[in-house]
Amino acid sequence: MIMDKYNKRVKKINSLLCVGLDPDFEKIPDRFKNLDFPQFEFSKWIIKETHEYTASYKTNSAFYEARGDRGMAELKMTIDYLNKNYPDIFTIFDAKRADIGNTNRGYITSIFDWLDFDAVTLHPYLGSEALKPFLERKDKVSIILCRTSNPGAPEFQDLESGGKTIWQIVAEKVSKEWNKNNNCMLVVGATYPGEMKKIREITGDMTFLVPGIGAQGGDLKAVMKAGLNSEGLGLLISSTSGIIFSENPKLEVQKLCEEIRKYK
Amino acid sequence: MIMDKYNKRVKKINSLLCVGLDPDFEKIPDRFKNLDFPQFEFSKWIIKETHEYTASYKTNSAFYEARGDRGMAELKMTIDYLNKNYPDIFTIFDAKRADIGNTNRGYITSIFDWLDFDAVTLHPYLGSEALKPFLERKDKVSIILCRTSNPGAPEFQDLESGGKTIWQIVAEKVSKEWNKNNNCMLVVGATYPGEMKKIREITGDMTFLVPGIGAQGGDLKAVMKAGLNSEGLGLLISSTSGIIFSENPKLEVQKLCEEIRKYK
Repeated sequence: MIMDKYNKRVKKINSLLCVGLDPDFEKIPDRFKNLDFPQFEFSKWIIKETHEYTASYKTNSAFYEARGDRGMAELKMTIDYLNKNYPDIFTIFDAKRADIGNTNRGYITSIFDWLDFDAVTLHPYLGSEALKPFLERKDKVSIILCRTSNPGAPEFQDLESGGKTIWQIVAEKVSKEWNKNNNCMLVVGATYPGEMKKIREITGDMTFLVPGIGAQGGDLKAVMKAGLNSEGLGLLISSTSGIIFSENPKLEVQKLCEEIRKYK
Repeated sequence: MIMDKYNKRVKKINSLLCVGLDPDFEKIPDRFKNLDFPQFEFSKWIIKETHEYTASYKTNSAFYEARGDRGMAELKMTIDYLNKNYPDIFTIFDAKRADIGNTNRGYITSIFDWLDFDAVTLHPYLGSEALKPFLERKDKVSIILCRTSNPGAPEFQDLESGGKTIWQIVAEKVSKEWNKNNNCMLVVGATYPGEMKKIREITGDMTFLVPGIGAQGGDLKAVMKAGLNSEGLGLLISSTSGIIFSENPKLEVQKLCEEIRKYK
């Protein structure tokens, strides 16, 4: 089962940390900018500095797409480097995709076969029928947006239907209907620990990808209290800028990992 | 105003037709497959055959992403070819994106600046606060998924909140709040003409992108009756496989265009 890859890694290094590998060209240090493959070289350096404490790397497609086909080529170099050198680290492509049935096959070929990520983030709006080609890939994980971390998330996600919010309905459907292959996760923002607690109650031991710690203001202690599952696992705490654009990524990743351990 | 580009073209050639320029590598004729740039050459041929009757071209990112950085390079060649040779044709990137605020800037750089499409399709789930970087681009169009054409669309889109379905709420919010710059459109599937009629009532003269004619079973006459706005415009009827993978794309596009004119 593909979720075992994540669980094994988490237990092996005692870390629930997901490092956001987002090589925003504007923000990477100048010494990388003039290299032939700046995004790849920066990512490789970050991986070398942070892998000991990292259960998972998550990379966001937008930062590569911004550089066109050059960016896509460097994305491929980055995931190949990861898969070759750190094959036990769980890899997430934060692409927030979702099209209708057959069109999704193009994304699947790209993300799961060409790039070979373990997991991808997906919008729920088109329903499970549309996402079937993703959900049927038992060897890969579909991470469905449930409660996102942005301040405007409530606009649609807090709408109530039959006494339940949309995010509650997403949590129920994904955990009880879509997850037949044990290959689903949910995105639950760190900025909403109250909601996270309810989503934990709905979904049992399902694993959440948790963005929003750090720059976005999510409180780590509150998240850990609200979100850990019955095994003391089930969370992938994602952090990006505070680590990769810091003076000392190695030190920052260690500090955050130890802080997470403290609250376990 | 960017919507004028679409309206001018529609009036100039008397066509509401949007041709789906989706060069699925598995489906393109064999004679293109061994060329250096198969997806570009196929698209160029389709454009030459169909442009006289085409108000807009819509290309889906998934078919290019499936071929990695090579696909992205051919996508760039295709949109450059279109913008250079047919600058009055409205171009849509059907990418169904949406991330949180700043991350969207990467997609915007890619889609609006590097590729230079006129419009992009977007998921509403994260709300308008997240989509602000798109909505603020007055020179570009944000096409929000409202009622999608797939059979499983009702799973979330038909949920009712305060006596309204989610697709009604999307239609209201986009037309009354998000569209301050007159640069929004909605995706409304041809397979749901009843819903389209209601969305027309909610949104006034807003333009809809309408997939689902042809292979998906949408009925053209019902769509035209339900969806035309007060000016007899406001629809972009999208067709793909029935045209681009037919024996004679030129003939098929002419036939469909004339059928649309008949119902105007």
